Amino acid sequence: MRATGILTDLYELTMLQAYYFLEMEEEAVFSLFVRKLPKERNFLISCGLEDVLNFVENLHFSEEDLEYLESLGIFKKKFLDYLKDFKFTGDIYAMPEGTVFFQNEPILEIKAPIGQGQLLETYIINEIHFQTLMASKAIRLVLAAQGKRVVDFGFRRIHGVESAHKAARAFYIAGVDATSNVYAGKRYGIPVTGTMAHSYIQAHEDEFEAFSSYVSFYPNTVLLVDTYDPLKGTENVINLYKKLKENFQVSGIRIDSGDLGEFSFKLRKILDEAGLKRVKIFASGGLDEYEIKEIVEKGAPIDGFGVGTKMGVSSDVPYLDIVYKLTEFKGEGRVKTSPGKITLPYKKQVFRIEKNGKYIKDIICRDGEEVEGKPILKKVFEKGKRKLSKEELDDIRNRVKEEVSKLPEDLLKIAPALNSYPVELSPVLKNFLKQNT
Amino acid sequence: MRATGILTDLYELTMLQAYYFLEMEEEAVFSLFVRKLPKERNFLISCGLEDVLNFVENLHFSEEDLEYLESLGIFKKKFLDYLKDFKFTGDIYAMPEGTVFFQNEPILEIKAPIGQGQLLETYIINEIHFQTLMASKAIRLVLAAQGKRVVDFGFRRIHGVESAHKAARAFYIAGVDATSNVYAGKRYGIPVTGTMAHSYIQAHEDEFEAFSSYVSFYPNTVLLVDTYDPLKGTENVINLYKKLKENFQVSGIRIDSGDLGEFSFKLRKILDEAGLKRVKIFASGGLDEYEIKEIVEKGAPIDGFGVGTKMGVSSDVPYLDIVYKLTEFKGEGRVKTSPGKITLPYKKQVFRIEKNGKYIKDIICRDGEEVEGKPILKKVFEKGKRKLSKEELDDIRNRVKEEVSKLPEDLLKIAPALNSYPVELSPVLKNFLKQNT
Repeated sequence: MRATGILTDLYELTMLQAYYFLEMEEEAVFSLFVRKLPKERNFLISCGLEDVLNFVENLHFSEEDLEYLESLGIFKKKFLDYLKDFKFTGDIYAMPEGTVFFQNEPILEIKAPIGQGQLLETYIINEIHFQTLMASKAIRLVLAAQGKRVVDFGFRRIHGVESAHKAARAFYIAGVDATSNVYAGKRYGIPVTGTMAHSYIQAHEDEFEAFSSYVSFYPNTVLLVDTYDPLKGTENVINLYKKLKENFQVSGIRIDSGDLGEFSFKLRKILDEAGLKRVKIFASGGLDEYEIKEIVEKGAPIDGFGVGTKMGVSSDVPYLDIVYKLTEFKGEGRVKTSPGKITLPYKKQVFRIEKNGKYIKDIICRDGEEVEGKPILKKVFEKGKRKLSKEELDDIRNRVKEEVSKLPEDLLKIAPALNSYPVELSPVLKNFLKQNT
Repeated sequence: MRATGILTDLYELTMLQAYYFLEMEEEAVFSLFVRKLPKERNFLISCGLEDVLNFVENLHFSEEDLEYLESLGIFKKKFLDYLKDFKFTGDIYAMPEGTVFFQNEPILEIKAPIGQGQLLETYIINEIHFQTLMASKAIRLVLAAQGKRVVDFGFRRIHGVESAHKAARAFYIAGVDATSNVYAGKRYGIPVTGTMAHSYIQAHEDEFEAFSSYVSFYPNTVLLVDTYDPLKGTENVINLYKKLKENFQVSGIRIDSGDLGEFSFKLRKILDEAGLKRVKIFASGGLDEYEIKEIVEKGAPIDGFGVGTKMGVSSDVPYLDIVYKLTEFKGEGRVKTSPGKITLPYKKQVFRIEKNGKYIKDIICRDGEEVEGKPILKKVFEKGKRKLSKEELDDIRNRVKEEVSKLPEDLLKIAPALNSYPVELSPVLKNFLKQNT
């Protein structure tokens, strides 16, 4: 999609026009953060920065866009002329994609003339919210699977086609092994995979014939055994083995219905007794991290999980309380003071303190304060020029792996952590809040 | 987005290749339907057909797509050559967008050589699922608002940028009055609207100054009064009226936090006493149909609602149990027989029976059966040619209005209906199920 300035809410443009004619060109800081972690998430993983940087870098208004805006009858000619040459000229500081973060921590901060920062609000929230939501859900399935394979089958139920691709990327970053989404495979270089559908079995005279024909094209495929009855389906796999003998290369079977854990014990036994220890068992069908956890903890002999809908819509938490707020203007901290809704003022930095290879505490501070730990926000845009070049997907994926390995064990549970991760405020921020609320 | 054949799951393509080499070119019927209505939905509204038709009409594989497929090492040269000239040659029958429907009713059926029908599965489910989900949520907010204005503020939290546009279209079809999404406004001709953000107020020395400056650009705007305190904010609106006198044209105020219903009574009183009966009150902030219902039933003097997140992610029901199943092959009914998961065989039709201007019953039947009522599925594609031309958005919107006006009152409640709408099976379908399950 074109990086057009009309990918925004109308009020961002009406405010921009007001700032333009009021000649309010002073720098503002806008901060993107999640107010409160949902109780079902012990941590979040930042994702979506690459699309934001790409958008900001290419942001412009086309002739056609300007004609549309003119047609609304609320924008003046002089302002539309200004938009014709609009270019973002500010700085952006952000957590690299794949960074673990917590409530109230700025994921991204924009320092720019106020109207410019305002204009970007809608797009920035949308991309970072959605992709962060997806990565933060997927890591939970990966953790629940305890090293077993997790594959994204979500294309059909994710909210929108383009979103399915971006979700596939977020899942991969979070450690999901592959996707069924071919377009995402091509676009992002993610491994693609797939088995067969029930309809393929139904289109043949019988299941055995369907298996035989499919294997003639894809010798090491995974056969779907539950179209009629998983036990009989598995018998048909064994029959195929008896027929093909040393030419039998089928790598696995898939079950997609019923009590997956329960079935897997039975099917494993049948396969083992037939000498097919090497044939793996894959499960799919309405899975999420809660079910995967249960299955894995039961010791069910399932080697991998295909997960679609519930990961793809983040069904237990379909949105985050993410906001983009003005925090500084003309060098002064500015915050809205509603009860229960803290906004931290100023341009900020987050410091993360590590001890014996584990993260133990974060401190949010005003930028420039001297605080222990490692700073997390990087300058990714400077005076309108992109500073962070496009990262390799596998580098981001490895970052997630490292980040997660440093988290306290308690946070890696699927259940809510007993102790939430400590996020402190620096003396300057604490003092500001004390004086302003 | 390009209508490329790789907008699909990998297994659709591997099955297509198998069918190609097996020379299985016989016609199949695939049926798209929702198995079970969620208990939070008394009816659904079909949406997304226009994108599906557009996709199918333009479906092709580019050179680049084919190179990618080749790189996967599982597709043969001859098959890739076949894909080069791939064109959909089948028929499609579908409910026009904006049609009300219920469980097990085919929303769309494809009759085509089996591999072709299979290839389209992923894309068709994705578009119809997402857009139907959005329209079916939005109608509930429209009903709850009982004629009061409902505006889409969802762009920032809907799952993805492209999806935000499609959602805005679905919302408008369902009766939502306008959107804040400028791009969607341009793309679909939906009315766009917007007010101002808290940041605009914060960027000024005080609230009164912010209101004054904004009104100088947008005399009949809606002023956001709750940045600091809604009562004081409203006083500032009145101060502005006192200053501008007959030049005061502000059309409304907006509150975005706190107990919206409660505040509205107070603010209405203050405005009325100041002689500003004509200034309307708009509310936003975490609203869904449940809250709107409560507010409206309380008689709160709110004239319109801005709704974002909860409508935009369909938070109470973030996905539907929608499936695309093989139901006929080589002229025979084919269904998967899993317990609790009925699939209805054959190419079908849905008849809707109307009495005294109200819908009273639907009957799903095999196409060709003689059944009373009005058939709902239309032929929209014939032998690969699109038959239904693009419908005007307002025509679809009017269809929803008419459809909903014919539904039994019980279904229009926000709470679950006491009696779900009757959907019967024809004798032929009943008989098939009796013999096959």
